[in-house]
Amino acid sequence: MEHLATKPGKTPSIRRLPVYLRFLKELRKQNENVVSCTRIAEELGQLSVQVRKDISLTCATGRPRIGYDINELIDAIEDFLGWNTKTNAVLVGAGSLGSAILGYEGFVEHGLDVLAAFDTDKRKIGTQIHHCRVESLDNLLEFSKTNNIQIGILTVPASAAQDVCNLVLKTGVQGIWNFTPVRLEVPEHIIREDVQLSASFAVLSNRLMKQKIEHRERQK
Amino acid sequence: MEHLATKPGKTPSIRRLPVYLRFLKELRKQNENVVSCTRIAEELGQLSVQVRKDISLTCATGRPRIGYDINELIDAIEDFLGWNTKTNAVLVGAGSLGSAILGYEGFVEHGLDVLAAFDTDKRKIGTQIHHCRVESLDNLLEFSKTNNIQIGILTVPASAAQDVCNLVLKTGVQGIWNFTPVRLEVPEHIIREDVQLSASFAVLSNRLMKQKIEHRERQK
Repeated sequence: MEHLATKPGKTPSIRRLPVYLRFLKELRKQNENVVSCTRIAEELGQLSVQVRKDISLTCATGRPRIGYDINELIDAIEDFLGWNTKTNAVLVGAGSLGSAILGYEGFVEHGLDVLAAFDTDKRKIGTQIHHCRVESLDNLLEFSKTNNIQIGILTVPASAAQDVCNLVLKTGVQGIWNFTPVRLEVPEHIIREDVQLSASFAVLSNRLMKQKIEHRERQK
Repeated sequence: MEHLATKPGKTPSIRRLPVYLRFLKELRKQNENVVSCTRIAEELGQLSVQVRKDISLTCATGRPRIGYDINELIDAIEDFLGWNTKTNAVLVGAGSLGSAILGYEGFVEHGLDVLAAFDTDKRKIGTQIHHCRVESLDNLLEFSKTNNIQIGILTVPASAAQDVCNLVLKTGVQGIWNFTPVRLEVPEHIIREDVQLSASFAVLSNRLMKQKIEHRERQK
């Protein structure tokens, strides 16, 4: 079951754009004005043709043999990612993962505005985490009536994930950013993006194991 | 520049295996013995042919018209991922993201053993986070002499990332699990796996924006 707005073929390109953006902003700090795909590719260890393809998703236009105006390219990428407009979010689950996300460098720069965090733990309710107030989960629906929430960020334990997701969907969010290991069921029109730490560890540990085996083979 | 052990074509399959594993363990809890690719595909919203291809990476062998023995399939996936053997790790950066990883459900089950956390903040040194002792970063190299560390987990601020990475590499780790937004430079034989929260948010916010535009178009 694919979600409506999902275009899997473009996803790897979209995932690379923030890396380019970071690099372009560093160049701008160094008062550079123009950059070529070849330069981006070399500095970031990518193929030039891949960089060109990724950037072609945006409406940036480069000039042959000169390259892109850095300010224009930054704007084009941010427009494409929707990072030039504010995105209102709530976060549910004010534990250490929730705190990490609330304190993550750069999200504010990407237009993400976490209006409030919600939890069921009375010791957390009323406290502040990185300038974000922790409210009782009981108040979430009331809160959503006076605040236009677009994204629900889920950092609750696995056992609570689907129930909390169902509650968050009632607020009228369009997207769920899921940090739990659970494969959440959401209606088709809802955009769900999963951050699966287990998937990342799987890639790492599988490669480690392969390297160990190759090493053992070479020693034979 | 591709790293030696990287096989990008298989990575999406490897990333899906933990999801299957989670589902298989749920089935086992319910005392089920046998499962088919079709059933896994249906329950997890995937194509059956894709599930079959992903599982074919492992050495599991199913029986036609019957399927896989669940215990055998769990073992085969865990063997393939290297999750049946212990992987020693250290974590540097005992902030909220570091705490979240130390407390993440399931990593212990995947064989990940974080031997110690390291930080430069004197208020944190000597404390315990989720049963893991926080040591001074000054002691890292000494610690590595008596402990075989395979993975360095980096949860430090962006500004410290490359320096800390260089220090961690001196311990003889084979892999770096990078949670910072920095594209770290590591020697070719080192396996680097990046968890880029910005990349995930880019995918989510780009889809949200597209949906908004489509919605506006329909209302015209």
